[in-house]
Amino acid sequence: MATLGKKGSFTPDSAGYAVHMPAGSVRRRVDIVLFPGFELLDVFGPVEVLSMEDERVEVRLLGPVAGPVASSQGAEILAPSAWPDAEAPDIVLVPGGAGTRHLVHDRAFLAWLRDWAAGAEIVASVCTGSAVLAATGLLDSYRATSNKLVYAWATGFGTSVDWQPRARWVVDGNRWTSSGVSAGTDMALALLDTIIGPGAGDRAAQQIEHERNADPHRDPFAA
Amino acid sequence: MATLGKKGSFTPDSAGYAVHMPAGSVRRRVDIVLFPGFELLDVFGPVEVLSMEDERVEVRLLGPVAGPVASSQGAEILAPSAWPDAEAPDIVLVPGGAGTRHLVHDRAFLAWLRDWAAGAEIVASVCTGSAVLAATGLLDSYRATSNKLVYAWATGFGTSVDWQPRARWVVDGNRWTSSGVSAGTDMALALLDTIIGPGAGDRAAQQIEHERNADPHRDPFAA
Repeated sequence: MATLGKKGSFTPDSAGYAVHMPAGSVRRRVDIVLFPGFELLDVFGPVEVLSMEDERVEVRLLGPVAGPVASSQGAEILAPSAWPDAEAPDIVLVPGGAGTRHLVHDRAFLAWLRDWAAGAEIVASVCTGSAVLAATGLLDSYRATSNKLVYAWATGFGTSVDWQPRARWVVDGNRWTSSGVSAGTDMALALLDTIIGPGAGDRAAQQIEHERNADPHRDPFAA
Repeated sequence: MATLGKKGSFTPDSAGYAVHMPAGSVRRRVDIVLFPGFELLDVFGPVEVLSMEDERVEVRLLGPVAGPVASSQGAEILAPSAWPDAEAPDIVLVPGGAGTRHLVHDRAFLAWLRDWAAGAEIVASVCTGSAVLAATGLLDSYRATSNKLVYAWATGFGTSVDWQPRARWVVDGNRWTSSGVSAGTDMALALLDTIIGPGAGDRAAQQIEHERNADPHRDPFAA
Protein backbone atom coordinates (compact mmCIF):
# COMPACT_ATOMS: atom_id res chain seq x y z
CA MET A 1 0.00 0.00 0.00
CA ALA A 2 2.98 2.27 0.61
CA THR A 3 3.39 2.80 -3.12
CA LEU A 4 -0.20 3.81 -3.64
CA GLY A 5 -0.75 7.06 -1.81
CA LYS A 6 -3.65 8.06 -4.03
CA LYS A 7 -6.48 7.66 -1.61
CA GLY A 8 -8.53 10.80 -1.31
CA SER A 9 -7.37 12.15 -4.67
CA PHE A 10 -10.48 10.89 -6.37
CA THR A 11 -12.91 13.69 -7.33
CA PRO A 12 -16.05 13.62 -9.43
CA ASP A 13 -16.47 16.16 -12.21
CA SER A 14 -19.45 18.50 -12.38
CA ALA A 15 -21.66 15.79 -13.84
CA GLY A 16 -20.80 13.55 -10.93
CA TYR A 17 -18.65 11.24 -13.03
CA ALA A 18 -15.09 10.44 -12.24
CA VAL A 19 -12.34 12.60 -13.63
CA HIS A 20 -9.06 11.04 -14.62
CA MET A 21 -6.71 10.58 -11.73
CA PRO A 22 -3.07 11.59 -12.34
CA ALA A 23 -2.07 8.02 -11.70
CA GLY A 24 1.59 8.16 -12.68
CA SER A 25 3.12 4.73 -12.54
CA VAL A 26 1.12 3.53 -9.56
CA ARG A 27 0.15 -0.13 -9.76
CA ARG A 28 -3.22 -0.86 -8.27
CA ARG A 29 -4.70 -4.07 -7.04
CA VAL A 30 -8.34 -4.90 -7.77
CA ASP A 31 -9.69 -7.31 -5.16
CA ILE A 32 -12.71 -9.23 -6.40
CA VAL A 33 -14.87 -10.72 -3.67
CA LEU A 34 -16.08 -14.18 -4.72
CA PHE A 35 -18.80 -16.09 -2.87
CA PRO A 36 -20.80 -19.24 -3.58
CA GLY A 37 -23.26 -18.44 -6.36
CA PHE A 38 -21.37 -15.51 -7.89
CA GLU A 39 -22.21 -14.79 -11.54
CA LEU A 40 -19.37 -15.87 -13.85
CA LEU A 41 -19.49 -12.99 -16.32
CA ASP A 42 -19.81 -10.37 -13.57
CA VAL A 43 -16.32 -11.45 -12.59
CA PHE A 44 -14.63 -12.56 -15.79
CA GLY A 45 -15.78 -9.69 -18.01
CA PRO A 46 -13.97 -7.23 -15.70
CA VAL A 47 -11.04 -9.61 -15.12
CA GLU A 48 -10.59 -9.98 -18.88
CA VAL A 49 -10.36 -6.26 -19.53
CA LEU A 50 -8.49 -5.25 -16.37
CA SER A 51 -5.85 -7.91 -17.09
CA MET A 52 -5.05 -6.18 -20.39
CA GLU A 53 -3.15 -3.63 -18.28
CA ASP A 54 -1.42 -6.11 -16.03
CA GLU A 55 1.66 -3.96 -15.61
CA ARG A 56 -0.54 -1.40 -13.91
CA VAL A 57 -3.41 -3.45 -12.57
CA GLU A 58 -3.20 -6.59 -10.47
CA VAL A 59 -6.39 -8.58 -10.14
CA ARG A 60 -6.83 -10.78 -7.10
CA LEU A 61 -9.68 -13.18 -6.45
CA LEU A 62 -10.74 -13.58 -2.84
CA GLY A 63 -12.99 -16.37 -1.58
CA PRO A 64 -14.59 -17.18 1.76
CA VAL A 65 -11.57 -19.45 2.19
CA ALA A 66 -8.63 -20.03 -0.13
CA GLY A 67 -9.78 -22.72 -2.58
CA PRO A 68 -12.62 -23.46 -4.99
CA VAL A 69 -15.68 -21.22 -5.11
CA ALA A 70 -18.70 -22.43 -7.10
CA SER A 71 -20.34 -19.90 -9.42
CA SER A 72 -24.09 -19.61 -10.12
CA GLN A 73 -23.40 -21.60 -13.27
CA GLY A 74 -21.62 -24.38 -11.38
CA ALA A 75 -18.09 -23.78 -12.67
CA GLU A 76 -15.64 -23.67 -9.77
CA ILE A 77 -12.92 -21.04 -9.58
CA LEU A 78 -9.86 -21.24 -7.35
CA ALA A 79 -9.57 -18.28 -5.00
CA PRO A 80 -5.89 -17.96 -4.07
CA SER A 81 -6.70 -16.11 -0.85
CA ALA A 82 -9.48 -15.76 1.68
CA TRP A 83 -11.30 -12.49 2.19
CA PRO A 84 -11.00 -12.61 5.97
CA ASP A 85 -7.20 -12.47 5.49
CA ALA A 86 -7.15 -9.71 2.88
CA GLU A 87 -4.95 -6.69 3.48
CA ALA A 88 -6.30 -3.15 3.00
CA PRO A 89 -7.67 -2.84 -0.54
CA ASP A 90 -6.98 -0.36 -3.35
CA ILE A 91 -10.03 -1.15 -5.46
CA VAL A 92 -12.83 -3.50 -4.40
CA LEU A 93 -15.23 -5.16 -6.82
CA VAL A 94 -18.28 -7.12 -5.66
CA PRO A 95 -20.00 -9.20 -8.36
CA GLY A 96 -23.64 -10.24 -8.40
CA GLY A 97 -25.24 -13.62 -8.80
CA ALA A 98 -27.78 -15.86 -7.13
CA GLY A 99 -25.57 -16.04 -4.04
CA THR A 100 -26.28 -12.41 -3.23
CA ARG A 101 -29.72 -13.50 -1.97
CA HIS A 102 -27.94 -15.04 0.99
CA LEU A 103 -25.11 -12.53 1.32
CA VAL A 104 -27.42 -9.57 1.93
CA HIS A 105 -28.54 -11.29 5.14
CA ASP A 106 -25.11 -12.47 6.31
CA ARG A 107 -24.38 -9.97 9.07
CA ALA A 108 -20.84 -11.15 9.77
CA PHE A 109 -19.89 -10.91 6.09
CA LEU A 110 -21.54 -7.49 5.70
CA ALA A 111 -19.74 -6.12 8.76
CA TRP A 112 -16.42 -7.41 7.44
CA LEU A 113 -17.04 -6.00 3.95
CA ARG A 114 -18.08 -2.59 5.28
CA ASP A 115 -15.01 -2.25 7.48
CA TRP A 116 -12.56 -3.65 4.92
CA ALA A 117 -13.87 -1.73 1.88
CA ALA A 118 -14.56 1.60 3.59
CA GLY A 119 -11.00 2.84 3.11
CA ALA A 120 -10.61 1.67 -0.49
CA GLU A 121 -9.81 4.12 -3.24
CA ILE A 122 -12.74 2.78 -5.28
CA VAL A 123 -15.60 0.53 -4.21
CA ALA A 124 -17.36 -1.09 -7.17
CA SER A 125 -20.05 -3.64 -7.87
CA VAL A 126 -21.54 -5.40 -10.86
CA CYS A 127 -25.21 -6.37 -11.18
CA THR A 128 -26.76 -7.45 -7.85
CA GLY A 129 -23.41 -6.84 -6.17
CA SER A 130 -24.86 -3.39 -5.53
CA ALA A 131 -27.53 -4.94 -3.30
CA VAL A 132 -24.69 -6.36 -1.21
CA LEU A 133 -22.87 -3.02 -1.06
CA ALA A 134 -26.14 -1.30 -0.19
CA ALA A 135 -26.80 -3.81 2.59
CA THR A 136 -23.46 -2.87 4.18
CA GLY A 137 -24.43 0.81 4.17
CA LEU A 138 -21.56 1.68 1.81
CA LEU A 139 -23.96 3.15 -0.75
CA ASP A 140 -25.94 5.29 1.67
CA SER A 141 -26.23 8.86 0.31
CA TYR A 142 -24.66 7.78 -3.00
CA ARG A 143 -26.25 7.44 -6.42
CA ALA A 144 -26.11 3.81 -7.60
CA THR A 145 -27.67 1.33 -10.00
CA SER A 146 -28.17 -2.42 -10.36
CA ASN A 147 -29.51 -5.16 -12.60
CA LYS A 148 -32.71 -4.00 -14.28
CA LEU A 149 -34.42 -7.40 -14.21
CA VAL A 150 -34.32 -7.68 -10.42
CA TYR A 151 -34.30 -3.97 -9.80
CA ALA A 152 -37.11 -3.92 -7.23
CA TRP A 153 -35.33 -6.50 -5.09
CA ALA A 154 -31.84 -5.07 -5.46
CA THR A 155 -32.90 -1.53 -4.58
CA GLY A 156 -34.56 -2.63 -1.36
CA PHE A 157 -31.28 -2.42 0.55
CA GLY A 158 -29.56 0.54 2.15
CA THR A 159 -31.34 3.40 3.84
CA SER A 160 -30.64 6.45 1.66
CA VAL A 161 -29.31 5.16 -1.65
CA ASP A 162 -30.29 7.34 -4.62
CA TRP A 163 -31.06 4.47 -7.01
CA GLN A 164 -30.84 5.26 -10.71
CA PRO A 165 -33.30 3.24 -12.84
CA ARG A 166 -31.67 4.26 -16.14
CA ALA A 167 -27.89 3.89 -16.19
CA ARG A 168 -25.42 1.46 -17.71
CA TRP A 169 -23.30 2.26 -14.69
CA VAL A 170 -23.07 5.03 -12.12
CA VAL A 171 -20.00 6.69 -10.65
CA ASP A 172 -20.65 8.83 -7.59
CA GLY A 173 -17.57 9.85 -5.72
CA ASN A 174 -15.59 6.65 -5.40
CA ARG A 175 -18.61 4.36 -5.63
CA TRP A 176 -18.97 2.61 -9.00
CA THR A 177 -22.03 0.41 -9.56
CA SER A 178 -23.10 -1.21 -12.81
CA SER A 179 -26.29 -2.60 -14.25
CA GLY A 180 -26.64 -6.33 -15.02
CA VAL A 181 -23.85 -8.76 -15.90
CA SER A 182 -22.31 -7.50 -19.15
CA ALA A 183 -22.64 -3.88 -17.98
CA GLY A 184 -19.78 -4.75 -15.66
CA THR A 185 -17.48 -5.10 -18.66
CA ASP A 186 -18.36 -1.61 -19.88
CA MET A 187 -17.86 -0.24 -16.38
CA ALA A 188 -14.47 -1.97 -16.12
CA LEU A 189 -13.42 -0.34 -19.40
CA ALA A 190 -14.37 3.05 -17.96
CA LEU A 191 -12.41 2.16 -14.84
CA LEU A 192 -9.35 1.57 -17.03
CA ASP A 193 -9.80 5.02 -18.55
CA THR A 194 -9.80 6.42 -15.03
CA ILE A 195 -6.94 4.52 -13.42
CA ILE A 196 -4.69 4.12 -16.50
CA GLY A 197 -5.65 7.12 -18.59
CA PRO A 198 -7.83 8.07 -21.57
CA GLY A 199 -7.66 5.51 -24.36
CA ALA A 200 -7.02 2.53 -22.11
CA GLY A 201 -10.63 1.40 -22.21
CA ASP A 202 -10.83 1.65 -26.00
CA ARG A 203 -7.60 -0.31 -26.38
CA ALA A 204 -8.84 -3.10 -24.15
CA ALA A 205 -12.23 -3.19 -25.92
CA GLN A 206 -10.45 -3.47 -29.27
CA GLN A 207 -8.27 -6.31 -27.97
CA ILE A 208 -11.32 -8.38 -27.06
CA GLU A 209 -13.41 -7.25 -30.07
CA HIS A 210 -16.03 -5.82 -27.75
CA GLU A 211 -18.40 -3.12 -29.03
CA ARG A 212 -18.13 -0.92 -26.04
CA ASN A 213 -20.94 1.17 -24.56
CA ALA A 214 -18.85 4.09 -23.30
CA ASP A 215 -21.82 6.20 -22.22
CA PRO A 216 -22.95 5.45 -18.66
CA HIS A 217 -26.28 7.20 -19.38
CA ARG A 218 -27.19 4.99 -22.34
CA ASP A 219 -29.07 2.05 -20.88
CA PRO A 220 -30.90 -0.06 -23.46
CA PHE A 221 -32.15 -2.38 -20.73
CA ALA A 222 -33.88 0.18 -18.54
CA ALA A 223 -37.60 -0.52 -18.13
CA MET B 1 -25.74 -40.24 -26.33
CA ALA B 2 -28.67 -42.59 -26.86
CA THR B 3 -31.11 -39.76 -26.29
CA LEU B 4 -29.52 -37.47 -28.81
CA GLY B 5 -29.96 -39.03 -32.23
CA LYS B 6 -29.64 -35.72 -34.05
CA LYS B 7 -26.28 -36.14 -35.65
CA GLY B 8 -26.40 -35.58 -39.35
CA SER B 9 -29.64 -33.57 -39.18
CA PHE B 10 -27.74 -30.32 -39.32
CA THR B 11 -28.12 -28.46 -42.62
CA PRO B 12 -27.02 -24.99 -43.67
CA ASP B 13 -29.50 -22.70 -45.38
CA SER B 14 -28.82 -21.19 -48.79
CA ALA B 15 -26.57 -18.52 -47.30
CA GLY B 16 -24.54 -21.21 -45.65
CA TYR B 17 -25.81 -20.38 -42.18
CA ALA B 18 -27.41 -22.88 -39.93
CA VAL B 19 -31.11 -23.41 -40.00
CA HIS B 20 -33.00 -24.25 -36.83
CA MET B 21 -32.90 -27.89 -35.97
CA PRO B 22 -36.20 -29.43 -34.82
CA ALA B 23 -34.62 -30.21 -31.51
CA GLY B 24 -37.63 -31.42 -29.57
CA SER B 25 -36.74 -31.94 -25.95
CA VAL B 26 -33.24 -33.22 -26.59
CA ARG B 27 -30.73 -32.11 -23.96
CA ARG B 28 -27.31 -31.46 -25.37
CA ARG B 29 -23.97 -31.35 -23.69
CA VAL B 30 -21.44 -28.70 -24.69
CA ASP B 31 -17.91 -29.89 -23.92
CA ILE B 32 -15.47 -27.02 -23.55
CA VAL B 33 -11.82 -28.00 -23.99
CA LEU B 34 -9.68 -26.09 -21.47
CA PHE B 35 -5.89 -25.97 -21.65
CA PRO B 36 -3.19 -23.93 -19.87
CA GLY B 37 -3.36 -20.38 -21.20
CA PHE B 38 -6.98 -20.43 -22.36
CA GLU B 39 -8.63 -17.01 -22.61
CA LEU B 40 -11.13 -16.48 -19.79
CA LEU B 41 -13.85 -14.67 -21.71
CA ASP B 42 -13.66 -17.09 -24.66
CA VAL B 43 -14.94 -19.67 -22.20
CA PHE B 44 -17.12 -17.76 -19.74
CA GLY B 45 -18.98 -15.62 -22.26
CA PRO B 46 -20.37 -18.78 -23.89
CA VAL B 47 -20.79 -20.58 -20.53
CA GLU B 48 -22.77 -17.62 -19.19
CA VAL B 49 -25.27 -17.62 -22.06
CA LEU B 50 -25.48 -21.37 -22.63
CA SER B 51 -26.19 -21.90 -18.93
CA MET B 52 -29.33 -19.76 -19.28
CA GLU B 53 -30.91 -22.82 -20.90
CA ASP B 54 -29.61 -25.36 -18.42
CA GLU B 55 -32.64 -27.59 -18.75
CA ARG B 56 -31.69 -28.13 -22.36
CA VAL B 57 -27.97 -27.48 -22.40
CA GLU B 58 -25.37 -29.02 -20.10
CA VAL B 59 -21.97 -27.35 -20.11
CA ARG B 60 -18.95 -29.44 -19.14
CA LEU B 61 -15.42 -28.17 -18.71
CA LEU B 62 -12.67 -30.59 -19.68
CA GLY B 63 -9.02 -30.13 -18.76
CA PRO B 64 -5.81 -31.99 -19.60
CA VAL B 65 -6.42 -33.70 -16.27
CA ALA B 66 -9.25 -33.28 -13.80
CA GLY B 67 -8.28 -30.32 -11.62
CA PRO B 68 -7.17 -26.70 -11.90
CA VAL B 69 -6.39 -25.19 -15.30
CA ALA B 70 -4.69 -21.78 -15.39
CA SER B 71 -6.10 -19.23 -17.84
CA SER B 72 -4.07 -16.67 -19.83
CA GLN B 73 -5.05 -14.19 -17.14
CA GLY B 74 -3.82 -16.42 -14.33
CA ALA B 75 -7.16 -17.30 -12.78
CA GLU B 76 -7.44 -21.05 -12.26
CA ILE B 77 -10.59 -22.96 -13.10
CA LEU B 78 -11.42 -26.44 -11.88
CA ALA B 79 -12.03 -28.89 -14.70
CA PRO B 80 -14.21 -31.67 -13.30
CA SER B 81 -13.03 -34.14 -15.96
CA ALA B 82 -10.06 -34.80 -18.19
CA TRP B 83 -10.36 -34.61 -21.96
CA PRO B 84 -8.59 -37.92 -22.51
CA ASP B 85 -11.45 -39.58 -20.60
CA ALA B 86 -14.29 -37.73 -22.33
CA GLU B 87 -17.10 -39.72 -23.87
CA ALA B 88 -18.31 -39.00 -27.41
CA PRO B 89 -19.35 -35.35 -27.61
CA ASP B 90 -22.56 -33.64 -28.74
CA ILE B 91 -21.15 -30.14 -29.16
CA VAL B 92 -17.45 -29.27 -28.83
CA LEU B 93 -16.15 -25.79 -28.14
CA VAL B 94 -12.45 -24.90 -28.29
CA PRO B 95 -11.52 -21.49 -26.84
CA GLY B 96 -8.54 -19.38 -27.82
CA GLY B 97 -5.83 -17.82 -25.71
CA ALA B 98 -2.06 -17.61 -25.47
CA GLY B 99 -1.91 -21.36 -24.85
CA THR B 100 -2.99 -22.07 -28.44
CA ARG B 101 0.57 -21.15 -29.53
CA HIS B 102 1.68 -24.42 -27.97
CA LEU B 103 -1.41 -26.49 -28.71
CA VAL B 104 -1.13 -26.08 -32.47
CA HIS B 105 2.17 -28.00 -32.30
CA ASP B 106 1.06 -30.67 -29.84
CA ARG B 107 0.59 -33.64 -32.14
CA ALA B 108 -0.78 -35.99 -29.51
CA PHE B 109 -3.40 -33.45 -28.47
CA LEU B 110 -4.33 -32.61 -32.06
CA ALA B 111 -4.73 -36.28 -32.94
CA TRP B 112 -6.95 -36.83 -29.92
CA LEU B 113 -9.06 -33.73 -30.66
CA ARG B 114 -9.52 -34.66 -34.32
CA ASP B 115 -10.68 -38.19 -33.52
CA TRP B 116 -12.85 -37.19 -30.58
CA ALA B 117 -14.53 -34.16 -32.18
CA ALA B 118 -14.99 -35.57 -35.68
CA GLY B 119 -18.30 -37.23 -34.81
CA ALA B 120 -19.75 -34.32 -32.88
CA GLU B 121 -23.01 -32.70 -33.92
CA ILE B 122 -21.34 -29.27 -33.84
CA VAL B 123 -17.64 -28.39 -33.65
CA ALA B 124 -17.07 -24.80 -32.54
CA SER B 125 -14.24 -22.49 -31.62
CA VAL B 126 -13.79 -18.97 -30.26
CA CYS B 127 -10.95 -16.64 -31.25
CA THR B 128 -7.65 -18.48 -31.84
CA GLY B 129 -9.38 -21.74 -31.00
CA SER B 130 -9.94 -21.89 -34.76
CA ALA B 131 -6.18 -22.17 -35.28
CA VAL B 132 -6.28 -25.27 -33.11
CA LEU B 133 -9.24 -26.72 -35.02
CA ALA B 134 -7.50 -25.91 -38.29
CA ALA B 135 -4.31 -27.61 -37.11
CA THR B 136 -6.29 -30.82 -36.54
CA GLY B 137 -7.61 -30.70 -40.11
CA LEU B 138 -11.20 -30.37 -38.88
CA LEU B 139 -11.67 -27.09 -40.78
CA ASP B 140 -10.24 -28.29 -44.10
CA SER B 141 -12.65 -27.41 -46.94
CA TYR B 142 -14.80 -25.34 -44.54
CA ARG B 143 -15.25 -21.60 -44.33
CA ALA B 144 -14.00 -20.28 -40.98
CA THR B 145 -12.82 -17.17 -39.17
CA SER B 146 -10.65 -16.19 -36.22
CA ASN B 147 -9.39 -13.28 -34.12
CA LYS B 148 -8.70 -10.29 -36.37
CA LEU B 149 -5.69 -9.06 -34.38
CA VAL B 150 -3.68 -12.27 -34.91
CA TYR B 151 -5.38 -13.21 -38.14
CA ALA B 152 -2.20 -13.86 -40.15
CA TRP B 153 -0.95 -16.31 -37.56
CA ALA B 154 -4.28 -18.03 -36.90
CA THR B 155 -5.03 -18.59 -40.58
CA GLY B 156 -1.68 -20.28 -41.19
CA PHE B 157 -3.05 -23.66 -40.11
CA GLY B 158 -5.00 -26.24 -42.04
CA THR B 159 -4.50 -27.00 -45.71
CA SER B 160 -7.69 -25.89 -47.43
CA VAL B 161 -9.57 -23.70 -44.99
CA ASP B 162 -11.59 -20.94 -46.67
CA TRP B 163 -10.71 -18.20 -44.15
CA GLN B 164 -13.15 -15.30 -43.91
CA PRO B 165 -11.48 -11.98 -43.01
CA ARG B 166 -14.78 -10.22 -42.33
CA ALA B 167 -17.17 -12.14 -40.10
CA ARG B 168 -18.30 -11.92 -36.50
CA TRP B 169 -18.65 -15.67 -36.75
CA VAL B 170 -19.00 -18.24 -39.49
CA VAL B 171 -21.20 -21.31 -39.64
CA ASP B 172 -20.37 -23.75 -42.41
CA GLY B 173 -22.07 -27.09 -42.11
CA ASN B 174 -21.54 -28.07 -38.51
CA ARG B 175 -18.39 -26.01 -38.05
CA TRP B 176 -18.88 -22.80 -36.06
CA THR B 177 -15.93 -20.44 -35.65
CA SER B 178 -15.96 -16.96 -34.14
CA SER B 179 -13.78 -13.91 -34.28
CA GLY B 180 -11.94 -12.67 -31.18
CA VAL B 181 -12.95 -13.15 -27.56
CA SER B 182 -16.31 -11.39 -27.13
CA ALA B 183 -17.45 -12.59 -30.56
CA GLY B 184 -17.74 -15.98 -28.88
CA THR B 185 -20.63 -14.66 -26.80
CA ASP B 186 -22.53 -13.55 -29.90
CA MET B 187 -21.83 -16.91 -31.54
CA ALA B 188 -23.06 -18.74 -28.44
CA LEU B 189 -26.30 -16.74 -28.56
CA ALA B 190 -26.75 -17.82 -32.18
CA LEU B 191 -26.02 -21.38 -31.12
CA LEU B 192 -28.89 -21.12 -28.61
CA ASP B 193 -31.20 -19.99 -31.42
CA THR B 194 -30.19 -23.10 -33.33
CA ILE B 195 -30.27 -25.75 -30.65
CA ILE B 196 -33.12 -24.36 -28.51
CA GLY B 197 -35.16 -22.42 -31.06
CA PRO B 198 -35.68 -18.85 -32.32
CA GLY B 199 -35.84 -16.32 -29.51
CA ALA B 200 -33.54 -18.22 -27.16
CA GLY B 201 -30.54 -16.08 -28.03
CA ASP B 202 -32.45 -12.84 -27.54
CA ARG B 203 -33.78 -14.04 -24.19
CA ALA B 204 -30.31 -14.91 -22.95
CA ALA B 205 -28.86 -11.61 -24.20
CA GLN B 206 -31.62 -9.73 -22.36
CA GLN B 207 -30.90 -11.66 -19.17
CA ILE B 208 -27.28 -10.57 -19.17
CA GLU B 209 -27.98 -7.04 -20.51
CA HIS B 210 -25.80 -7.75 -23.53
CA GLU B 211 -26.30 -5.70 -26.71
CA ARG B 212 -26.14 -8.59 -29.07
CA ASN B 213 -24.64 -8.57 -32.54
CA ALA B 214 -26.97 -11.06 -34.19
CA ASP B 215 -25.55 -10.61 -37.68
CA PRO B 216 -22.59 -12.87 -38.37
CA HIS B 217 -21.66 -10.72 -41.38
CA ARG B 218 -21.32 -7.49 -39.36
CA ASP B 219 -17.73 -7.38 -38.16
CA PRO B 220 -16.67 -4.00 -36.77
CA PHE B 221 -13.20 -5.37 -36.04
CA ALA B 222 -12.30 -6.55 -39.54
CA ALA B 223 -9.21 -4.84 -40.93
